[in-house]
Amino acid sequence: MNSNTLPSSNSLLQPSAPIGVFDSGIGGLTVVAALQKLLPHENILYIGDTARVPYGGKSQETVMRYSQEIVDLLLQRGSKLAVAACNTASALAVPTLKNFYAIPLHGVIESGAAAAIKTTRSGKIGVIGTKATIRSNAYHQAIDVLDPHLTIISQACPLLVPLIEEGWIEDEITDSILHRYLDPILSQGIDTLVLGCTHYPLLKKRIATIVGPEITLVDSAENCALDIKSLLAEKNLATTNKDKGNLNIILTDRSEGFLNLAAERLHLIADSLETISFH
Amino acid sequence: MNSNTLPSSNSLLQPSAPIGVFDSGIGGLTVVAALQKLLPHENILYIGDTARVPYGGKSQETVMRYSQEIVDLLLQRGSKLAVAACNTASALAVPTLKNFYAIPLHGVIESGAAAAIKTTRSGKIGVIGTKATIRSNAYHQAIDVLDPHLTIISQACPLLVPLIEEGWIEDEITDSILHRYLDPILSQGIDTLVLGCTHYPLLKKRIATIVGPEITLVDSAENCALDIKSLLAEKNLATTNKDKGNLNIILTDRSEGFLNLAAERLHLIADSLETISFH
Repeated sequence: MNSNTLPSSNSLLQPSAPIGVFDSGIGGLTVVAALQKLLPHENILYIGDTARVPYGGKSQETVMRYSQEIVDLLLQRGSKLAVAACNTASALAVPTLKNFYAIPLHGVIESGAAAAIKTTRSGKIGVIGTKATIRSNAYHQAIDVLDPHLTIISQACPLLVPLIEEGWIEDEITDSILHRYLDPILSQGIDTLVLGCTHYPLLKKRIATIVGPEITLVDSAENCALDIKSLLAEKNLATTNKDKGNLNIILTDRSEGFLNLAAERLHLIADSLETISFH
Repeated sequence: MNSNTLPSSNSLLQPSAPIGVFDSGIGGLTVVAALQKLLPHENILYIGDTARVPYGGKSQETVMRYSQEIVDLLLQRGSKLAVAACNTASALAVPTLKNFYAIPLHGVIESGAAAAIKTTRSGKIGVIGTKATIRSNAYHQAIDVLDPHLTIISQACPLLVPLIEEGWIEDEITDSILHRYLDPILSQGIDTLVLGCTHYPLLKKRIATIVGPEITLVDSAENCALDIKSLLAEKNLATTNKDKGNLNIILTDRSEGFLNLAAERLHLIADSLETISFH
């Protein structure tokens, strides 16, 4: 990774600069899809760390080091904002890293937590995510800061990402696994369920069927896009571009298969695809 | 990683030196358990690349780079032999890397392939493994070199590793998933099934029940240990130590949880545990 492309602090704050989005893999493209829907004129630079995917299950120290390398690269490539479209990085790295960068750094967890609080009436919120996200207690903490009177019931669902990557979406085995994970938290009176992993929106229909209409699903991708829209307005960083924005993708390992699958499911078209290595 | 501990070529070939074993994570400890059972006096140095696990799904270039860094480290720490207890590394990196090192480099795939050929009578061999192992066609090629008249029917089973890591071993959901993966290959007349992933021996009992007594399971961990025993004898590298050998473990990320689980299931006791980073 060379560092001689570091832009001046002025160029960082150009409204025409891209929104930087990153994830351990390609799951964060659900956030890109939500951003494109809401902010079609913004340019987006996406980094997927497919050479080291997944972050879920790895230590805070390692997730912090990986996230920092990626945010450095987003800065070098002139991003005006960095979005951690990865719950594990949001949980373990964003709270610390946001103090060290000149551009705003936003994580999906803040968005999911705020949306869950707005949604709940019973005061009981369910959260599902990877082992690392749930173990980090990050949703719990993010919700507590905003409203300490709510009850949060969380459940790690480590099989859902591999099931989604296997393509078993409308599938009785997936339904059985969802019941195994969700039934114990449904019996505790939640009225709101946060999909605390960027892959999960791809299973949203099945989850909605299993939890029933009384429970509102909070999709952190959609809520993250809404927050980014507000943040850009607040910082005077919204683009004035009238054309469709570009989507440029950087991966740390060649992963065309997964990428094509995700792009097809999410109706995304990349303007460029580059592969780099962190050494 | 410092390089000033590189031993002289003499010390590499000391029978008292450890057998180096590596894997992308902790799954390769099944090979360590098989080695300890067969060669209880040998010292073993295990490296699990838990900061970058899994390798399955990553490109050949990336798996090659990771494997080379690890074999370099095994050499620096004085190993007399390096065993890739990782099917993905065996498939994508060992065939090339074995030409570049002064110590013997052995992969689990060679062992599994040779054992499957000895076992089959019908000439039809099934192979299950991760997506990367199956896509690499490595078992197919390794079997073909030894006997080109056999039929190999392979099946990628990407959900089995996460199911094992979730601890759902004796479980009806796991049985349904095993049926989904295995029924199509069972209907094609195989009499031998290679467990082509180092995690799979932990599911051996369930797999044996599902495939029935007519099909022989080939456990690459056990067969790998047998091959290492022969290789040590052939190269005059077997230890003369009469005490129980040591087991030293190096991980690239702190992963005590998984490690404890594996060590408990496999009845392994580590004499030391060290965490290092590749930069």
